[in-house]
Amino acid sequence: MNARPGKLYGVGTGPGDPELLTLKAVRIIETADVVAFFAKEGSAGNARAIVAARLRPGTAELPLLYPVTTEIGKDHEDYRRAISGFFDAAAARVAAELSAGRSVAVLSEGDPFFYGSYMHLHVRLAHRFGTEVVPGVTAMSGCWSAAGMPLMQGDDVTTVLPGTLPEAELARRLSDTQAAVIMKVGRNLPKIRGALRAAGRLETAVYVERGTMEGGRALRLADKGDDRAPYFSVVLVPGWAARPQAGAAGEAA
Amino acid sequence: MNARPGKLYGVGTGPGDPELLTLKAVRIIETADVVAFFAKEGSAGNARAIVAARLRPGTAELPLLYPVTTEIGKDHEDYRRAISGFFDAAAARVAAELSAGRSVAVLSEGDPFFYGSYMHLHVRLAHRFGTEVVPGVTAMSGCWSAAGMPLMQGDDVTTVLPGTLPEAELARRLSDTQAAVIMKVGRNLPKIRGALRAAGRLETAVYVERGTMEGGRALRLADKGDDRAPYFSVVLVPGWAARPQAGAAGEAA
Repeated sequence: MNARPGKLYGVGTGPGDPELLTLKAVRIIETADVVAFFAKEGSAGNARAIVAARLRPGTAELPLLYPVTTEIGKDHEDYRRAISGFFDAAAARVAAELSAGRSVAVLSEGDPFFYGSYMHLHVRLAHRFGTEVVPGVTAMSGCWSAAGMPLMQGDDVTTVLPGTLPEAELARRLSDTQAAVIMKVGRNLPKIRGALRAAGRLETAVYVERGTMEGGRALRLADKGDDRAPYFSVVLVPGWAARPQAGAAGEAA
Repeated sequence: MNARPGKLYGVGTGPGDPELLTLKAVRIIETADVVAFFAKEGSAGNARAIVAARLRPGTAELPLLYPVTTEIGKDHEDYRRAISGFFDAAAARVAAELSAGRSVAVLSEGDPFFYGSYMHLHVRLAHRFGTEVVPGVTAMSGCWSAAGMPLMQGDDVTTVLPGTLPEAELARRLSDTQAAVIMKVGRNLPKIRGALRAAGRLETAVYVERGTMEGGRALRLADKGDDRAPYFSVVLVPGWAARPQAGAAGEAA
């Protein structure tokens, strides 16, 4: 006789501060049979760290460890095949738990559907199992809140740009939007700086590192003297040109 | 002798479901001396409704009632002056509470800095009083999660578009992005439909009404037979063209 399948939850854990978990995320993490998370070999991963205090003793944990691909270029077909095979295998492991009647909460930093790894499991499993996605506070919301920096208002267009795009493409898009958020900064920072300068947006751009986490900081990108940046830092480019200026001066300080 | 000024909090209340409040939002709402919120005359407002169960008996409430401007066009200088004067007056009322030593939590649906009214107070007060912004789950995250619809992944560009933009401008931008979120739908729906058709994006666009609230629903925009839509509905346009197709078919159902 087969067990009734368990339910799959994609659970957003927010931008880093454990107090930015939602009540719903806490409830599901505390009651799920299995808590799964993506991580690199040798690390429990950020999402696991955010919820650490919420895990019941004895909760089954299912770490999904990324394959080591440092020797393969990201644009290479072998890389794509390795990553796709990894997500297939991860989905099979989660499916085995669900099929055995256990509920599985898959942790996802920020919001699961906003560039999150969880969605690679979702598209492989949601048509086979009962599924619920619990949205979370995104890393970008955590960053602009920590920086005290309102970016978009009224009829502003907001563009979210991966820092991996070519410099000319970044510059073109930065010239054609009110507000912008540039993610995946890391080693792309020199290129991002060049694109902002070309678009005339460097003066107002703000660099934010580690957002709501401990040791987080925000500063004008033009005042940052080096090009070292962790991958998960972001660059914020304000729109809302019509904002009252007294306040704007106060919070740019 | 003057009291030590109170602290100003901009508190994101999330997309509608009270369980999508963060732990931090709950703590601040439960301990603030004054809870302020924007609303229309005759209504307590959505943000107030989301936190209703969290308000201690006896918490001072400060409703900030929008002026009635239905007879003034939105592009008219008189409208801008009325709204700006309203925010000045609202900021003065909040400042009076803070100056008297009381902490004030200003509720903001979704995330305070993502097109939220709170930021009109923030730019007027953050340089004068200790201020903290508590990010929340955005309405768009609530909508794509409720619809089970992953939109953006990897190097996708995401564009957030107010439905108030001209049709040709919407079409141009929809043709030049991977994922898109169209907000402020309401009476702009016929125009949004036209822009999506012109950009070749109508077939995959999904209309979401009331997101995570009770009575929420999602359907393909092409299958929606009328053009009636509440102002706070959204239209989601998926990127992530490379997603595995079996799952995509499953969740489009």
